[in-house]
Amino acid sequence: MLKFAIRTTTRSEMLDITSQVRATLRTAGVQDGVCHLYVPHTTAGITINEGADPDVRRDVLTDLDRLIPWLGKYYHIEGNSAAHIKSILVGSSVQVFVENGQLQLGTWQAIFFCEFDGPREREVWVRVR
Amino acid sequence: MLKFAIRTTTRSEMLDITSQVRATLRTAGVQDGVCHLYVPHTTAGITINEGADPDVRRDVLTDLDRLIPWLGKYYHIEGNSAAHIKSILVGSSVQVFVENGQLQLGTWQAIFFCEFDGPREREVWVRVR
Amino acid sequence: MLKFAIRTTTRSEMLDITSQVRATLRTAGVQDGVCHLYVPHTTAGITINEGADPDVRRDVLTDLDRLIPWLGKYYHIEGNSAAHIKSILVGSSVQVFVENGQLQLGTWQAIFFCEFDGPREREVWVRVR
Repeated sequence: MLKFAIRTTTRSEMLDITSQVRATLRTAGVQDGVCHLYVPHTTAGITINEGADPDVRRDVLTDLDRLIPWLGKYYHIEGNSAAHIKSILVGSSVQVFVENGQLQLGTWQAIFFCEFDGPREREVWVRVR
Repeated sequence: MLKFAIRTTTRSEMLDITSQVRATLRTAGVQDGVCHLYVPHTTAGITINEGADPDVRRDVLTDLDRLIPWLGKYYHIEGNSAAHIKSILVGSSVQVFVENGQLQLGTWQAIFFCEFDGPREREVWVRVR
Repeated sequence: MLKFAIRTTTRSEMLDITSQVRATLRTAGVQDGVCHLYVPHTTAGITINEGADPDVRRDVLTDLDRLIPWLGKYYHIEGNSAAHIKSILVGSSVQVFVENGQLQLGTWQAIFFCEFDGPREREVWVRVR
């Protein structure tokens, strides 16, 4: 398994990790396959969406907060149930194809680590099949 | 990578693409493996759900619109943030098993391309491992 | 394809199936790969999240009910549209890495079958690549 570490800096944040994924595949000499990206955390997620306009990320995070407010009526004593719920809705893995050593993303797509209970030290795990 | 194209005809729509997936696998002679379906777009998604009653799709699209209204308070200047958010919640890939040349779906399952900002020309990318 | 059966006991429930996944892989002698778990149902899902505190599950299920109420305005005559919608948002497959015969989960992660229209007899399908 390949891995890379990231550090998030605020409670809710979408971090563009496309270049780290590319670097990890390049270092490992991956030429072809399906690249599986996996987040081993329960209050974070991973997704693929628009990377060009930072306002998209802002709208996504704001709207997730509106739907699943941090200060809801929750039983979980740690107080971060909203982050667990967002993590489940966004998901903890994505897959991307690799061909000729190149990550195959759509024109506007970038890969985002989604922090919902930061700031924290986080990891992304990677396998290619 | 295999691909096929689709054309959506309205802003929000769930298009049953099961037969196109089957045709793509048949043409490629795929007998066995895990079939990865990937949407290279940021305002569309892909999911697996009931194909029998069209009212299920209608309820899904109506409820997603209720949860994430098109005319919300968004910053993204293109005005389609709702579509980006739905795309993230629904997801941009699914996987289905293939055995003896047959797609292994549950009794009621069909594969749906989810358009959230149409009408547009769209693609689905396919790899089997 | 490997499979295992589960029985859910109430309408909405998150069932920790980590040990059944481990047992299935052990019986099949799986040492290494990407383990794909697939739910062949349209009113259930599968996710990976915190297994330690049962209150997390309770908060997740309660909040999904708040967002997508069972008694909403739905057209689907069976009356279980809420379950279909939750199934789409949570997703019908997950993947986990396997190394040296061990499922690679994060410290707090467990695998959950998510029942949204139980009680029912359900299945989880498994393939490792």
